[in-house]
Amino acid sequence: MAAVALVQGASRGLGFEFCRYLLLNKSPTAVIATCRNPDAAQHLAALSAQHADRLTVLKLDVCREDDIKRAAESVSDAFGKVDLIINSSAMLHPSGKGETSLREVSAQGVISTLTTNTVGPLVMAKYFAPLLQKGTGAFGQQSPKKEKQHSGIIVNMTARVGSIGDNALGGWYSYRMSKAALNMATRNLSIELGRGRSKIVCVSLHPGTVNTDLSRAYHRNVPKDKLFSTEYSVQCLMNIIDTLNIDKTGKAYAWDSTEIPW
Amino acid sequence: MAAVALVQGASRGLGFEFCRYLLLNKSPTAVIATCRNPDAAQHLAALSAQHADRLTVLKLDVCREDDIKRAAESVSDAFGKVDLIINSSAMLHPSGKGETSLREVSAQGVISTLTTNTVGPLVMAKYFAPLLQKGTGAFGQQSPKKEKQHSGIIVNMTARVGSIGDNALGGWYSYRMSKAALNMATRNLSIELGRGRSKIVCVSLHPGTVNTDLSRAYHRNVPKDKLFSTEYSVQCLMNIIDTLNIDKTGKAYAWDSTEIPW
Ligand SMILES: NC(=O)c1ccc[n+]([C@@H]2O[C@H](COP(=O)([O-])OP(=O)(O)OC[C@H]3O[C@@H](n4cnc5c(N)ncnc54)[C@H](OP(=O)(O)O)[C@@H]3O)[C@@H](O)[C@H]2O)c1
Ligand SMILES: NC(=O)c1ccc[n+]([C@@H]2O[C@H](COP(=O)([O-])OP(=O)(O)OC[C@H]3O[C@@H](n4cnc5c(N)ncnc54)[C@H](OP(=O)(O)O)[C@@H]3O)[C@@H](O)[C@H]2O)c1
Repeated sequence: MAAVALVQGASRGLGFEFCRYLLLNKSPTAVIATCRNPDAAQHLAALSAQHADRLTVLKLDVCREDDIKRAAESVSDAFGKVDLIINSSAMLHPSGKGETSLREVSAQGVISTLTTNTVGPLVMAKYFAPLLQKGTGAFGQQSPKKEKQHSGIIVNMTARVGSIGDNALGGWYSYRMSKAALNMATRNLSIELGRGRSKIVCVSLHPGTVNTDLSRAYHRNVPKDKLFSTEYSVQCLMNIIDTLNIDKTGKAYAWDSTEIPW
Repeated sequence: MAAVALVQGASRGLGFEFCRYLLLNKSPTAVIATCRNPDAAQHLAALSAQHADRLTVLKLDVCREDDIKRAAESVSDAFGKVDLIINSSAMLHPSGKGETSLREVSAQGVISTLTTNTVGPLVMAKYFAPLLQKGTGAFGQQSPKKEKQHSGIIVNMTARVGSIGDNALGGWYSYRMSKAALNMATRNLSIELGRGRSKIVCVSLHPGTVNTDLSRAYHRNVPKDKLFSTEYSVQCLMNIIDTLNIDKTGKAYAWDSTEIPW
């Protein structure tokens, strides 16, 4: 059975590029692209026109548990399994800018960022874990030892600024806290889902600073060679995904394969 | 001017014991005890009857930004400064039990735990930072070097299970994620508030496993000598607080003064 990959948050940025990459480079993988507003996702519509046989677009607002449940049911009906899920959706803050100081922090802003960036990916894992357990290990580097083989992979897109130990600058309260909590979710998922007979590998990946809307307001401060194209970043991250196995689960890796401290 | 200490989440458990300790052992410190329902906080009422001159009880639901703002205004009017804030309120999960598996995770349960355990303490810091900056360094161990002296201290009560690196068991998704994100808040606060002329020290403290309602359902699995009384735990934590200075800011410490990895 062909590989099945699902990208959550695929309308733009890295999520969109993951879909494009998988369609171009991982044939005959079936790609499921989810986004909260398919009608407004023009790039995805164009991609869908080119790859109608392999790309499925589903409506999924990661803040709505019902949407996630429904999407999992529809993927179950259509494919019966998933081999790879990439949780890519996130925001810096509802205002579009990270807080530069405590004065800019609001309860509502933090809660809303946590709901999208942290709770969403965890609830995705809840509903898709049974499908990943039916995965056929089509992604990653399968261990030769049967008892170590994995069925599926969950990738949570994190950020280096989500590392508590690496934090020397402060600021961006909501975003930093959301990614630290997401890293805890990754760790917890790696433990629970790494136990059974159908193992799921779960990692956090940091894409580098990438030329997308998310970080656009800050790009002028980034040296040119440190600002990646989505193509370059996704290529690096897919290289990491291609080598994942159960020994690498429960960790955070940057685009260059180095481990990021918690 | 006498020291001023505020304990947030003081109706029961460790928060209540911090108030009792401060009244008994840190005379003439003025103690402000906040809780979401003062009318139902019987132990606090009894304590208040004994120490009417030094104990002020304020209504504060840590999930309500308005409550926090109002409390800060009222403390500002009455005291004009704060030297120590202890954020003690928290829950394991709205159900009272941590999730044992992903199946028990719900978006609403995670959000509600994050709102109380993580967002609340951060919003406390937002409204009380100006008062802590007016603190007179009455707690901690003041540095002899003027440029290193602190004005106030923020203690966020964390938990060892909030350490991502230390997590080998999994489970308790909401609680673990809330404390990991709280640790990030501690770290961020320590950076922003450690910079200026009026420095605020900010740490996360783990009290051990303590005989309170929060962990009651799990006490039968804890060896007797590992289950602390609130008195013992608060004594240990106050010993740590008594030695805090700006060199120790931005870290997580356990009751025995050892540092906890992120
Ligand atoms: N770009 C960077 O420099 C950078 C650095 C470190 C980490 N990252 C991480 O990389 C991941 C991808 O970021 P990006 O740069 O590709 O960001 P982006 O270009 O801003 O795209 C964000 C995506 O998230 C989606 N999204 C937001 N809220 C959503 C919701 N409630 N439900 C479903 N989708 C939602 C957006 O959909 P709509 O089109 O509907 O808004 C969009 O597709 C994120 O996790 C980010 O934190 C990025
Ligand atoms: N006990 C342990 O074994 C243990 C271990 C590790 C860490 N900790 C941490 O230590 C701290 C104190 O815990 P504890 O053991 O003393 O817990 P506890 O006895 O269950 O007390 C919890 C306190 O939090 C308050 N609270 C809950 N939600 C609130 C809200 N929205 N607004 C204001 N107050 C609220 C409760 O007030 P009400 O009376 O109004 O409900 C109560 O005073 C917590 O941060 C906990 O995570 C405890």
